[in-house]
Amino acid sequence: MFFVSDNASPVAPEVLDALARANEGYAMPYGADALMAEVRAKIREVFEAPEAAVYLVATGTGANALSLGFMCPPWATVFCHRHAHISEDECAAGEFYTGGAKLTLIDGPGAKITPAALAQAIAEATNPDVHHVRLGMLSLTNLTERGAAYTPAEVAELTALAKAAGMPSHMDGARFANALVATGATPAEMTWKAGIDVLSFGGTKNGLMGAEAVVLFDPAKAIEFELRRMRGGHLFSKHRYLSAQMAAYLKDGLWLKLAAQANASGQRLAKGLAAIPGVEVQAAPAANLMFVRMPRSAHARARAAGAAYYLMSSDDVTAGPADTPILCRLVTSWSTTDAEVEHFLALIRG
Amino acid sequence: MFFVSDNASPVAPEVLDALARANEGYAMPYGADALMAEVRAKIREVFEAPEAAVYLVATGTGANALSLGFMCPPWATVFCHRHAHISEDECAAGEFYTGGAKLTLIDGPGAKITPAALAQAIAEATNPDVHHVRLGMLSLTNLTERGAAYTPAEVAELTALAKAAGMPSHMDGARFANALVATGATPAEMTWKAGIDVLSFGGTKNGLMGAEAVVLFDPAKAIEFELRRMRGGHLFSKHRYLSAQMAAYLKDGLWLKLAAQANASGQRLAKGLAAIPGVEVQAAPAANLMFVRMPRSAHARARAAGAAYYLMSSDDVTAGPADTPILCRLVTSWSTTDAEVEHFLALIRG
Amino acid sequence: MFFVSDNASPVAPEVLDALARANEGYAMPYGADALMAEVRAKIREVFEAPEAAVYLVATGTGANALSLGFMCPPWATVFCHRHAHISEDECAAGEFYTGGAKLTLIDGPGAKITPAALAQAIAEATNPDVHHVRLGMLSLTNLTERGAAYTPAEVAELTALAKAAGMPSHMDGARFANALVATGATPAEMTWKAGIDVLSFGGTKNGLMGAEAVVLFDPAKAIEFELRRMRGGHLFSKHRYLSAQMAAYLKDGLWLKLAAQANASGQRLAKGLAAIPGVEVQAAPAANLMFVRMPRSAHARARAAGAAYYLMSSDDVTAGPADTPILCRLVTSWSTTDAEVEHFLALIRG
Amino acid sequence: MFFVSDNASPVAPEVLDALARANEGYAMPYGADALMAEVRAKIREVFEAPEAAVYLVATGTGANALSLGFMCPPWATVFCHRHAHISEDECAAGEFYTGGAKLTLIDGPGAKITPAALAQAIAEATNPDVHHVRLGMLSLTNLTERGAAYTPAEVAELTALAKAAGMPSHMDGARFANALVATGATPAEMTWKAGIDVLSFGGTKNGLMGAEAVVLFDPAKAIEFELRRMRGGHLFSKHRYLSAQMAAYLKDGLWLKLAAQANASGQRLAKGLAAIPGVEVQAAPAANLMFVRMPRSAHARARAAGAAYYLMSSDDVTAGPADTPILCRLVTSWSTTDAEVEHFLALIRG
Repeated sequence: MFFVSDNASPVAPEVLDALARANEGYAMPYGADALMAEVRAKIREVFEAPEAAVYLVATGTGANALSLGFMCPPWATVFCHRHAHISEDECAAGEFYTGGAKLTLIDGPGAKITPAALAQAIAEATNPDVHHVRLGMLSLTNLTERGAAYTPAEVAELTALAKAAGMPSHMDGARFANALVATGATPAEMTWKAGIDVLSFGGTKNGLMGAEAVVLFDPAKAIEFELRRMRGGHLFSKHRYLSAQMAAYLKDGLWLKLAAQANASGQRLAKGLAAIPGVEVQAAPAANLMFVRMPRSAHARARAAGAAYYLMSSDDVTAGPADTPILCRLVTSWSTTDAEVEHFLALIRG
Repeated sequence: MFFVSDNASPVAPEVLDALARANEGYAMPYGADALMAEVRAKIREVFEAPEAAVYLVATGTGANALSLGFMCPPWATVFCHRHAHISEDECAAGEFYTGGAKLTLIDGPGAKITPAALAQAIAEATNPDVHHVRLGMLSLTNLTERGAAYTPAEVAELTALAKAAGMPSHMDGARFANALVATGATPAEMTWKAGIDVLSFGGTKNGLMGAEAVVLFDPAKAIEFELRRMRGGHLFSKHRYLSAQMAAYLKDGLWLKLAAQANASGQRLAKGLAAIPGVEVQAAPAANLMFVRMPRSAHARARAAGAAYYLMSSDDVTAGPADTPILCRLVTSWSTTDAEVEHFLALIRG
Repeated sequence: MFFVSDNASPVAPEVLDALARANEGYAMPYGADALMAEVRAKIREVFEAPEAAVYLVATGTGANALSLGFMCPPWATVFCHRHAHISEDECAAGEFYTGGAKLTLIDGPGAKITPAALAQAIAEATNPDVHHVRLGMLSLTNLTERGAAYTPAEVAELTALAKAAGMPSHMDGARFANALVATGATPAEMTWKAGIDVLSFGGTKNGLMGAEAVVLFDPAKAIEFELRRMRGGHLFSKHRYLSAQMAAYLKDGLWLKLAAQANASGQRLAKGLAAIPGVEVQAAPAANLMFVRMPRSAHARARAAGAAYYLMSSDDVTAGPADTPILCRLVTSWSTTDAEVEHFLALIRG
Repeated sequence: MFFVSDNASPVAPEVLDALARANEGYAMPYGADALMAEVRAKIREVFEAPEAAVYLVATGTGANALSLGFMCPPWATVFCHRHAHISEDECAAGEFYTGGAKLTLIDGPGAKITPAALAQAIAEATNPDVHHVRLGMLSLTNLTERGAAYTPAEVAELTALAKAAGMPSHMDGARFANALVATGATPAEMTWKAGIDVLSFGGTKNGLMGAEAVVLFDPAKAIEFELRRMRGGHLFSKHRYLSAQMAAYLKDGLWLKLAAQANASGQRLAKGLAAIPGVEVQAAPAANLMFVRMPRSAHARARAAGAAYYLMSSDDVTAGPADTPILCRLVTSWSTTDAEVEHFLALIRG
């Protein structure tokens, strides 16, 4: 009953096996390993993007911050949701890597940006004089930090607004596979066909040890990305171990299989919780991440039995009125079992 | 016969086993895993530094650049050797992480800084007015990029000069274990007892997959290091896999055993080469890294037989006078075998 | 009838005379001029702060951005009003000089921050983990960008909240003199006695050519400010010409006399406008800056007669319904005459 | 007898008059003043560069650092002389404004870079991998910090080397007028006709109060320069007072007249000193700046009589052997009089 985060789950066995297989003999360092060629080819195939430039880093924040640095000049602003990971969870990594750009924070339910809100934010930020920062870029997170999924059509509408204002678009896909499974979209449909220029393609939260790809659908200035990765300290010397993870992830659709497992557990959990009187599941969770209000007593039972997850406030679940609703976040992963879910639901039911 | 770099060697089997063992169940992310507590305790024990703050990152450039950012304000300069990794091989990562500090480059044989050269550089850079950057810090690399080792006494003499000028001292220990084995010093003797304040404690070049520790012997401002690591994108979510590597590395002296193997191969190689007429081994390699001048014909034979290593020039080894001496770099690692060395020596002998 | 900005007004004659007097013979550069000693002593006297460190720069953005860089580390956030100059009008200069910190934008009428809003913003931003930026500093603008003035009591209440959260406080005093005149407070009451640690003490908008002081009430780390000023390119070589302006400004209370003139014109204008049917003066302008809604026809008449000021929208005042209210900003300065004001009022009356 | 620096001299009377004339009525701020249009047109005419973009700032370090930030990406290096102002005298302003680029320091007599030295430095820095910073730009100072002048032919040879390596070229012209007078070159010959892309066109050291122009001979990305100037805090609100200085400077060749005066005094001083036994004038000063070795006793006499100038060491001129040669720097300016020079020469003669 570990619902703290999908990054607390173990590495998929296929990935561990691939690392062991990669551990033979010597390999050229810094991305010149043979496995990286395989990864590059496979990502291009999966995304139907034969020209895309593909780079690996080990952390999601590294992938996002490098993307922002690459896409947004220091005198501009990044349009993103107020609850975007780049806004709330990266300790101003984007501001560091851009050399001091701004983020323009947009509100919206489910941590999704609506076209109207984006249009208004762009209009308010549009200013021809030099006192104001320029329009820099759009960054969308899919799956969002509140568990909702953008459809390709929704992404396309937002990127079209950005493009009309002269801005490129980034997708933070830390849970990209979960979003694809939730929407049924293909990788291409969700990204470049919908106007995304650069994707942070997450693996770590979905069964890898620590590997994320950055996919530049337009490779024109890719060398700049490489130099930024190096001076950020994100180029691995023993790169084959990043390559091996990503190659295993993409092989035979493992990445989508793992996300499907995580989402199925998430949906089972959400449905089960929604059926319990006194429990409120916020919005309709699209994948493996949800925010739920439950009575204090339910929290107390679950925690006493060892369930682990984040509360969204500093409430003490062991003291106070039993029926006070307290908000929590629950995340399932590829390794969540039905038994875990059922045990948790039983505890909440009381 | 792969002498390109020690970062081209595989991961030690003990480390791979440890990763597999760590892959059980859930673990709290971002360094709150139980293995990290073990790593912290072990490093404090090994370094006889019970108060030290210990952090893990995945790359040597990350470790160095974060250390520089932590130790040197933007309006100061880092004294280092001209051939230091932070000078030549990190694409200005240090300049990025410090927010635009300078490096003051010092020459010296074997990529070692001499006390006289450091004293002169400090004297020249000392200036009380605001037009000049201030004295920032000293950074020493041990083992050096030219294969020499500083003794603790040498380190102490240099850090004393730095300290007298108000500067803290950093050691880039990407090959720290090799330097210890070469000198017979203890970890404490080579670092804090010799005036080192912050150590980049390398593991990747010596049998790990991608894990380096940064050891702050004075933990007073450690939280700043943590925040810098986060906004640099260097905090791992699935941190247990960094911890597992480092724990295995430190267990039962594996790290020193691996370095001893690498050094032994290096010494066998250096001695063998030095005995071949027409071959010049530069300086006296202290550990597993050496620069060697060999006739073009010897290079041609070795390469034709599959030997891999870097030339220090753009010479073509397959065309031109047979006896032209051409400089190359050779690096052995924990996985280098005696057979590889002997095969290579035979090829060079012709 | 020039109400575009107080920075469009000329230099006060006393200041021009002082520049001419300063133009005799040689003077040591970079702040070692004799006049600077006079300025330093005078500011310490005026602010009743005998230990304060005092530095001159030529622009308000320079003063603010250097102050932010000095006070806020890169991994923290600056609490300020959404309409603060540092937020809207400096093209992310603060983000540049801090090395990539964030601004946390707070709403509030008259561009003033209320204690409740600040307390809430601090509470929301308080987070002990490393994923979130830290609490950095508070920055208040007085006079605000919407023409309101904080009283010393109001400032004290806000800085107390900041201090309780561990944050120092900055005041952007581009129109500091106007705020003092409006509130009747002394310089000390408005700043360090009210918890302000660093003041951008404006002169340019109030009769100088281009000179602002930064006053550090705690001189402990003043050398860092000096180094930041130098590397920002804001240290004047012919510094005596900054000193001469500031010395003249402070002599015999010229600075307060000029602000009193500007405020008197502003109050005359505001009162006159408020009395005109169909004209709405927003809030109660405290000094020399106001936002006013007037019918399109009134704008058309004023502009046709040569009145200059900013509209807050892209409306065309020459076409469209005559009585549509259109918002504009009006700023008076030390050089505004009663005749200008009366002429303008007559035009608006129609 | 004030030879400390040309920035210790007063403002030329024509410039002060122009400031007084500019002080009439209102003027649009931030460079929209009518005088700036005049300045722009005049600089384009003087430089025979009808397309050039022209911007004013108040300090030489501001002009240089903004130019470097505009021309050199963070992952590249600036080739310059070891004694360049950007290397030794700007507290890493260039590193700040570029976001952490490097300077590659080149030695050479008279603080001049020779083609051979530049070619070698470029060759050594050329490296296609991502571990090394890229070739960024060339920056030449003319007049150099050691008082020598590059001819247009020399500049052209150096910029051709840079261009062949893909680099643009900058000229730090803090003493540009002195270099023109010394060489007889036209502004166009010394700059864009010789391959210079961006010029820091100095005025402050040559009779202005604090005004420098940055001239972009290719205006293609000029808006980026404007945004960088703004966020650096270098855009003046009361911009007319920068414009007025620069307009007066350019009117009727005042700038060249002032430089001719400074150079004539410098040449008189250098010739006079060279004729004194025991005095050694280093190199052949081209203009108004020279380095001279004189016996301690000569220094003692001059200083006792009130002569002011910098010693290049911490020697005490009042104690020690009378004939020890001690190096000093002497700078004349537009305001240096023949009487001052003759008085000084008499003192040195003893």
